[in-house]
Amino acid sequence: MNAPSSLEALIEALRCLPGVGPKSAQRMAYHLMQHDRGGAQLLADGLQRALAALRHCQRCNTFTEAEVCGRCLSGKRDASLLCVVETPVDMNMMEQTHAYSGLYYVLMGRVSPLDGIGPGELRLDRLLARACDGVVSEVIIATNYTNEGEATAHYLSEMLKSRGVSVSRIARGVPVGGELEYVDAGTLAQALRERRTLDP
Amino acid sequence: MNAPSSLEALIEALRCLPGVGPKSAQRMAYHLMQHDRGGAQLLADGLQRALAALRHCQRCNTFTEAEVCGRCLSGKRDASLLCVVETPVDMNMMEQTHAYSGLYYVLMGRVSPLDGIGPGELRLDRLLARACDGVVSEVIIATNYTNEGEATAHYLSEMLKSRGVSVSRIARGVPVGGELEYVDAGTLAQALRERRTLDP
Repeated sequence: MNAPSSLEALIEALRCLPGVGPKSAQRMAYHLMQHDRGGAQLLADGLQRALAALRHCQRCNTFTEAEVCGRCLSGKRDASLLCVVETPVDMNMMEQTHAYSGLYYVLMGRVSPLDGIGPGELRLDRLLARACDGVVSEVIIATNYTNEGEATAHYLSEMLKSRGVSVSRIARGVPVGGELEYVDAGTLAQALRERRTLDP
Repeated sequence: MNAPSSLEALIEALRCLPGVGPKSAQRMAYHLMQHDRGGAQLLADGLQRALAALRHCQRCNTFTEAEVCGRCLSGKRDASLLCVVETPVDMNMMEQTHAYSGLYYVLMGRVSPLDGIGPGELRLDRLLARACDGVVSEVIIATNYTNEGEATAHYLSEMLKSRGVSVSRIARGVPVGGELEYVDAGTLAQALRERRTLDP
């Protein structure tokens, strides 16, 4: 004799969340039904509302409820700079630096052949059209310095350079505040290779 | 400029799940909206259906979609035995032993003064009424051997014994297949204290 079918279905549905296995899903379902029905109702409503409202910005591809997001519509950003990031979270991280005033393009992923995600799945043609609009003068690639992020950066830079677009990549090296003793050898080797000549 | 309000609301709503903090909630929300809208819809539906359908069995207090659950209605169970467990998961664990054919009472929690859960919150009056129905001859307390589970067992046994109900507690000791070398000292001390005389 198993759990009621609506409970089984809820446990199964919770497994669509990343990092949630059968045990966690069971614990979550019992918790919601026993201790937090109000939260469960809010979650159901939140999912429905987000599913109905969220779409991708026609210009930068991030999540928005409008045709074009507020940042792309803002007249205060430098439209000649286009920064390419993997996710909306990465875009937020860039914004929090207060060191960038250009626009963005959010890939919503990365080239990852092992997961079956190639340039076609990422809709890079839309990025290309965006970068070649005649206003953008430099594309700054800010994908992660992981293997997939690096492969994505390489692919993007080749694609953009072949169209005559000027491309740059955010620097890598020892983190600010980082001690050499605690930096991994790969990072240190790159920091050495990509050293900058100091003004005399 | 922040995320769209429906996305913010979804991230906030996901935090009602146990063990999900702000970072996980953000990751879950982006994953669902970008990669698994079908799963998000299933989850919203599953929550709604469970909220509408699930209630507590009038006899054993577990989740059910009917007035009384199938197990309590079954004529094949020994109605003179009542096993008290903390959660429906614990009940499933007991069933998987195939060593018990009596009925259950699910506390849906444990006495935990630090969390503000006392005997009143657990509705122990309903268990008492169930145990004193004239059919039950023995109540087997199968709460966890944690501090809270032990406190709950102590409280329950005092309460039931004062009403003249026969009460027992599942045994504790070295796990089957367990090696003394890897058993903690507390468990071993209890196993020694609660040793059984073997038939000569």
